[in-house]
Amino acid sequence: MANSRSGDSMTDRIVRVLETFTAERTMQTATEIAQRAELPASTAHRIIGDLITAGLLERDEDRRVRLGMRLWELALRGSRALRLRQAALPHMERVQSVIREHTQLAVLEHEEALFVERLSHLQAGANITRIAGRLPLNASSSGLVLLAHADPAVRERVLSAPLPAVSPETVTDAVTLRALLTAIRRRGYVIAPGSIESVSTGVAVPVRDRGEVIAALSVVLPRGAATEPAINALLAAARGIEQDLSALR
Amino acid sequence: MANSRSGDSMTDRIVRVLETFTAERTMQTATEIAQRAELPASTAHRIIGDLITAGLLERDEDRRVRLGMRLWELALRGSRALRLRQAALPHMERVQSVIREHTQLAVLEHEEALFVERLSHLQAGANITRIAGRLPLNASSSGLVLLAHADPAVRERVLSAPLPAVSPETVTDAVTLRALLTAIRRRGYVIAPGSIESVSTGVAVPVRDRGEVIAALSVVLPRGAATEPAINALLAAARGIEQDLSALR
Repeated sequence: MANSRSGDSMTDRIVRVLETFTAERTMQTATEIAQRAELPASTAHRIIGDLITAGLLERDEDRRVRLGMRLWELALRGSRALRLRQAALPHMERVQSVIREHTQLAVLEHEEALFVERLSHLQAGANITRIAGRLPLNASSSGLVLLAHADPAVRERVLSAPLPAVSPETVTDAVTLRALLTAIRRRGYVIAPGSIESVSTGVAVPVRDRGEVIAALSVVLPRGAATEPAINALLAAARGIEQDLSALR
Repeated sequence: MANSRSGDSMTDRIVRVLETFTAERTMQTATEIAQRAELPASTAHRIIGDLITAGLLERDEDRRVRLGMRLWELALRGSRALRLRQAALPHMERVQSVIREHTQLAVLEHEEALFVERLSHLQAGANITRIAGRLPLNASSSGLVLLAHADPAVRERVLSAPLPAVSPETVTDAVTLRALLTAIRRRGYVIAPGSIESVSTGVAVPVRDRGEVIAALSVVLPRGAATEPAINALLAAARGIEQDLSALR
């Protein structure tokens, strides 16, 4: 989790309640939420009640609690993620129609790759990413592109911290990683075989908005598949997204 | 706005701050937020500071405030909207590839149609809807389908309140609307010419999860276009979404 849990503001407590919900845990009792948020039961129950009144949480017939549609609505209206994926989706669909595997869009968020959109072919191979999911910057092809173009201060911070291994082939040596990032900036794309799963190869390119890299567009291919068509499709899509983003301004 | 502004809990104040952001207003100063949220400046500044610390808001170089990626992430992880649109998107793409106009997915939320996904062809005609936007139930084709299948108590409440006119052709007479809703339940779809804009016709069908209507799938066609292909494509897509939703359980 990127945010400290030691803060004590009301906002912090509300965030702690919302953070107990995950893709695997969409329904919880108030008692479970209190325990997972590490809040006194009375505090948690009051916050949950307020959040239900505001529509940010909803209660079902069995008195279990889930995230409310109103939270989704508030978060999406006027969000950067929505503008980006609106511009990106038609181009991602074009990549999908050619490559027919997984196509995803990620942004740099608190020194991780946060995936904001993903399209998957029904018969596509393995893929660990999910929408609103995160991966370490050194492990995913998207993360490598984002790290290569990150603010130098962020890059140095990531390079000087321990680099997590997601698979045996994840680059975890800082010197090797630094050379790889330089190569990514020079080449304009990355091919990352097996860095997440040995059966897959990630291919990613940067997406720019007014000259600045704001996202990475990637496909996940079965290991050993030709990467050339994917690189070409991704580079064309990235150019299209950049044009549409500038038209949205 | 569906929620009362008279509440005074901290949660309520936070929601009021978040509610000041819209698709047209993605960047604001703290002073503008305080005014729009009708909060004392000191209260608003403190909440904004806490929300920035938690990552739910972000500040840019010009000290203007926008919604944070972390809010988007919290709202999407484990949300009903995400599960629904994950199941729906491949089928919506199939509709788009045949009809090539606008395809959208809406849910019933606080007696309005809330649009959770929209795909648009680059050359498609007029369309007022947007993702995370709302329309009155009696005006949009999606809203009519959702109202036809709503809980009877919700339906009676909507029918007994004044019905807003979005266009001169919006059905605003309760007796006419009641007959239309009965026809929608019998036929399994609605064709709503001009109810939002005189140049467009909306066509919508219900989407079920375990027998219950949970969403409406619709296309917006230019007025006078053939509706038969759209109805067939929508009904096939709704069946596909229902199968995928049951597989996701």
